[in-house]
Amino acid sequence: MESKKHLLLLFDRPKEPVFMAKGKNKAVFNVPQNYLEDKYKPAATQIVNRFGEDAGEKINVSRISLPPLGEILELKRNENFSLFLPKHRRIAGKLIDIFLGMRNVEELLSCAVYARDRVNPYLFNYCLSVALLHRPDTQDIDLPSFISSFPDKYLDSQVLGEAREQATIVPDGSRTPIEIPKDYTASDLEEEHRLAYFREDLGINLHHWHWHLVYPFEAARVVVDKNRRGELFYYMHQQIIARYNFERLCNDLKRVDRLVELKSPIKEAYFPKLDSLVSSRAWPSRVANQTLSNIRRETDQITQDIDDLIRWRDRILEAIHSGVIRNEQGQEIPLTENEGIDILGNIMESSILSPNRAYYGDMHNMGHVLISYIHDPDHRHLETFGVMGDSATAMRDPIFYRWHAFVDYIFQQFKNSLPTYTPQQLDFNEVTVQDIELETPNGRSNQINTFWQQSDVDLSRGMDFQPRGSVFVRFTHLQHRNFNYKITVNNTGGNKQGTCRIFIAPKFDERGNPWTFRDQKNMFVELDKFTVNLKQGTNTINHSSTDSSVTIPFERTFRNLDNERPTGGDALAQFNFCGCGWPQHMLVPKGKAEGYACQLFVMISDYEGDRINQTTEGACNDAGSYCGIKDKLYPDRRSMGYPFDRLPRQGVSTLQEFLTGNMRIRDINIQFENRTFKPRQTGVN
Amino acid sequence: MESKKHLLLLFDRPKEPVFMAKGKNKAVFNVPQNYLEDKYKPAATQIVNRFGEDAGEKINVSRISLPPLGEILELKRNENFSLFLPKHRRIAGKLIDIFLGMRNVEELLSCAVYARDRVNPYLFNYCLSVALLHRPDTQDIDLPSFISSFPDKYLDSQVLGEAREQATIVPDGSRTPIEIPKDYTASDLEEEHRLAYFREDLGINLHHWHWHLVYPFEAARVVVDKNRRGELFYYMHQQIIARYNFERLCNDLKRVDRLVELKSPIKEAYFPKLDSLVSSRAWPSRVANQTLSNIRRETDQITQDIDDLIRWRDRILEAIHSGVIRNEQGQEIPLTENEGIDILGNIMESSILSPNRAYYGDMHNMGHVLISYIHDPDHRHLETFGVMGDSATAMRDPIFYRWHAFVDYIFQQFKNSLPTYTPQQLDFNEVTVQDIELETPNGRSNQINTFWQQSDVDLSRGMDFQPRGSVFVRFTHLQHRNFNYKITVNNTGGNKQGTCRIFIAPKFDERGNPWTFRDQKNMFVELDKFTVNLKQGTNTINHSSTDSSVTIPFERTFRNLDNERPTGGDALAQFNFCGCGWPQHMLVPKGKAEGYACQLFVMISDYEGDRINQTTEGACNDAGSYCGIKDKLYPDRRSMGYPFDRLPRQGVSTLQEFLTGNMRIRDINIQFENRTFKPRQTGVN
Repeated sequence: MESKKHLLLLFDRPKEPVFMAKGKNKAVFNVPQNYLEDKYKPAATQIVNRFGEDAGEKINVSRISLPPLGEILELKRNENFSLFLPKHRRIAGKLIDIFLGMRNVEELLSCAVYARDRVNPYLFNYCLSVALLHRPDTQDIDLPSFISSFPDKYLDSQVLGEAREQATIVPDGSRTPIEIPKDYTASDLEEEHRLAYFREDLGINLHHWHWHLVYPFEAARVVVDKNRRGELFYYMHQQIIARYNFERLCNDLKRVDRLVELKSPIKEAYFPKLDSLVSSRAWPSRVANQTLSNIRRETDQITQDIDDLIRWRDRILEAIHSGVIRNEQGQEIPLTENEGIDILGNIMESSILSPNRAYYGDMHNMGHVLISYIHDPDHRHLETFGVMGDSATAMRDPIFYRWHAFVDYIFQQFKNSLPTYTPQQLDFNEVTVQDIELETPNGRSNQINTFWQQSDVDLSRGMDFQPRGSVFVRFTHLQHRNFNYKITVNNTGGNKQGTCRIFIAPKFDERGNPWTFRDQKNMFVELDKFTVNLKQGTNTINHSSTDSSVTIPFERTFRNLDNERPTGGDALAQFNFCGCGWPQHMLVPKGKAEGYACQLFVMISDYEGDRINQTTEGACNDAGSYCGIKDKLYPDRRSMGYPFDRLPRQGVSTLQEFLTGNMRIRDINIQFENRTFKPRQTGVN
Repeated sequence: MESKKHLLLLFDRPKEPVFMAKGKNKAVFNVPQNYLEDKYKPAATQIVNRFGEDAGEKINVSRISLPPLGEILELKRNENFSLFLPKHRRIAGKLIDIFLGMRNVEELLSCAVYARDRVNPYLFNYCLSVALLHRPDTQDIDLPSFISSFPDKYLDSQVLGEAREQATIVPDGSRTPIEIPKDYTASDLEEEHRLAYFREDLGINLHHWHWHLVYPFEAARVVVDKNRRGELFYYMHQQIIARYNFERLCNDLKRVDRLVELKSPIKEAYFPKLDSLVSSRAWPSRVANQTLSNIRRETDQITQDIDDLIRWRDRILEAIHSGVIRNEQGQEIPLTENEGIDILGNIMESSILSPNRAYYGDMHNMGHVLISYIHDPDHRHLETFGVMGDSATAMRDPIFYRWHAFVDYIFQQFKNSLPTYTPQQLDFNEVTVQDIELETPNGRSNQINTFWQQSDVDLSRGMDFQPRGSVFVRFTHLQHRNFNYKITVNNTGGNKQGTCRIFIAPKFDERGNPWTFRDQKNMFVELDKFTVNLKQGTNTINHSSTDSSVTIPFERTFRNLDNERPTGGDALAQFNFCGCGWPQHMLVPKGKAEGYACQLFVMISDYEGDRINQTTEGACNDAGSYCGIKDKLYPDRRSMGYPFDRLPRQGVSTLQEFLTGNMRIRDINIQFENRTFKPRQTGVN
């Protein structure tokens, strides 16, 4: 158990060598001489003694036979690391395997200590995280939030400068949080900036990073091959686009344009204003009206033409429209009604589960890569990739949504080719939803109240080479008042179980017209999904917005290991996986100051069709809808997105017409108040 | 004298407040409470005590009636500062005036201490530097090299990260210099990168910064109105273009294209890879094929159309081709043969000496501004300017030379309109240059040997908020072996004085053809100019390349105030001005590994036509050709660039035909050895 705790110290201050103090107790690793980097060997004794003197704790590291790091060292310490790049994925796979192969935690610690100061810090963090998540003997370790190791991937670079100033000058007790301006990447002159609060939200970007940590597309097969992961890739990103489009409508912008013309100028620019502390380089910007180029970057071992993407797209569409894919052996595999989407997801992403990567390529990943190298396609300027090249930062850039809207469009081509749901597949015999009410304590019913909220996060674990002690930054994010669903269900039959599925969508389109169902179905955002027990007669279901199946609580998104950790074995056991989840504060879109008309949709589906036979007792299933449940099956047998994942049956053109007796809709108003509330709990008083 | 020394401490660690230790002796300013920034006032006692404890010296600051800073504070601490922006120039002018207005050094110190932690650090450094240069009571203060305060404007941002790591981990005595890779901004895939060693040379960029410090285009008139400053603007930049073209030819590139099509895409990209430590933002990059836009940036109070530049250009050409300019009163002023270029220089730059800024505009400055805002012309992305917006960094970008080639082309239009020099204006009666030899000790005669040299520079005065002690970086620059001119002159008359003018140019053009004179004249690079006494008969002139009138020694370019300073009053007195000068290590172009054929040109002109009646005893006139001499007339009565500043007389089409008896040419070979020599003296052993 001690060694496990010590492993966590390796996430602290990623560029400070292991012989410098780590964590609250100023622990120092006592390493064999040959563990030191070459550059420190000449002054080794002096340096090690110097930092050892102040140590609050000395951690002895056992000497093991050290694994050759080989190709892993080709990614230099001061370079950037991208999961989208095949070479980086391969290197990461190797390091993960080394960590997974250590016989016990003792050896893992020694190996990780050795690797830490040699391997690229981003790569190290990723690989150790994946290994800790997937080793049986380390699953009860709670990983620190990625932002605490690498705040530079999330925060305005100016804040890091101010933090350095504050940590040097102001004594630990007297520091006050450094405020990040809400609008620092652009101004309102730029239309797309209206969505910055969404794109640059710390929680959303942490979710995206964590999702890809839980679902790596390349690693040992046992790590990658999770239940319905291809389908979840489709669904999680479909929901991101639905949410983004919803937010756009709230901000008087039309739904996002698919990035379909890959050879035309891209009009949206993005200037991330992030500095990489590891590479001491700023993240490259993307100026307006740049055009993608074929890339040929020897350093990344990558040559990729735009035409490759076009060819892959056409082959994927060929598979969709013919209903079969070709696997590596040349066999035709049908895209079935229920499992087809999972295969397509793996093909599209692509992960190593793709049945034919040579033929269907690496569509989604290479889109990220091409876009991220738009400014330096042949590496002549020695530039690294832009924010689209890193899952921790990609969602900041407007182009992310244009690209994923294109990816989703292809998935929808498949979904639209499936048989429509019959009323029998939708209805729940004897069950009628009679009423829905959305209640906000002391608020108006059927109204959601949104506003700006400030919160604090501690940077100090990620601020290398500066004095210790907490340094808080204060950021501003969207928030809403908690609310409750009150759903009245009539059951004319015997006791039964159902699944309550709650979605929300805008009531009108960009023109202010009511939707047709085939358009509105793609706008529905999942708010919650939970099992209900129905007794005969009238049932009243009360459910809180904070119990959503898509979100994790704010405290878990920004978990600070020094201050809080789940108590008790079971909760702790699953804490990592729980790091994945849409941030609770972004559960509902912003709405408008004059109110924004939405439709809340509630459906009680027949649990007989939903049921997965497994126990999820003690499992962290808070955000199961978007993240699945660790080591378990996806907790819903229906196609993800049900009942909005397909075209409507013949004769249905509106939501109203779509409803069966077990569904109901309710007009909801999202009322935004343009006011900023101070932190509920401050980092420093 | 004490106060003067203390003033220099204000250049140390520009972002660290005045109450933190400054300089070698860890001096701390003891300031009145109201001098502290507001943010430090709450914890004032605690903070001031904390830093006061370690102080090696406490400097008491006298309380004065504080000047209102007003508009000066509109430029925030974390913004960037540009002399090219009218608003910034105006603010700078005000702060310079405040500093100039202080009654004595005591008050100046107090005022500067007060301003330092409030005013933008770049602005503060610039204004205090100009004030110290121009106040009668502070002229004997030697300013530190700009690079020691702001290394971030000169060095790869990654080096700064490494320096921070080293300063934290490695004890002061054991540090080794951090090496800057020679090629960090681009690779050889990019043709323009062949010139990076020139564009990114630390000494060249320091020269350019210092030149504009000595010749500000906006400040009190007494500061701006220096002898022939408009002409020097023309000539210094003409020489930069000549040198750059020379280097291009050495690297198999053709002469630089003028940036004449202001509305077409600019094909060259530039990625500076510099971080601003003050603004905690990277310098914006300029990607390939971007097009200039009209700018409208309210924060900079600037609205400027490309058409404005085109209109100004046409008006300036109108003036040139008609021979008269219109002043503000509507009067016509002739552009005379000798003074016309000075007026045109002031118009073109433009400085406040321009006779009609409303009509002829702000051509050269606004070119810098338009280019530097190419990525964010309307400030929608809250971006600052690119490297072209700062005279300390502008010469790094290939576009600088395309822009200045365009500016120079307009000047040449004027020069080409002047009467050609007659043989009588060129010749020197009774004087014949009989022979020239260029000698390198232990080397081949008439050959210049070039190679790569490494040198070290100490960053530590510019590294805010990190442990103290020297941190050296090692950079690689062009260098040549010192050589001597041996010139044999026959004088058939009595004792007389002459001016020996030495130039060098490539022997062939890009196609390998011999030049016509009208093209070659613009390629001539001034190497030296000095007065000679000629006795009757044969005179042998020996002159060292290190005594060049265009350069300053390496040690002065990188002067480190802690280690070395000129001894004696006179030398010290002029040390500042001497910071201006082409770096000695860049005196001659690179040449080629297979040898590069050049023509060395020597002319002895008649001193009667050259003489300026003034004493320059004790004055620093090392680099008079490019910088002038402080508070003196320009030390040569001829037009700058003479005899190559005009078209040749009728019938002359080659250099050979141009020669009169007092001129001679000699074929010279520049032999480049692609080898890197270690530092002659190392920062740290």
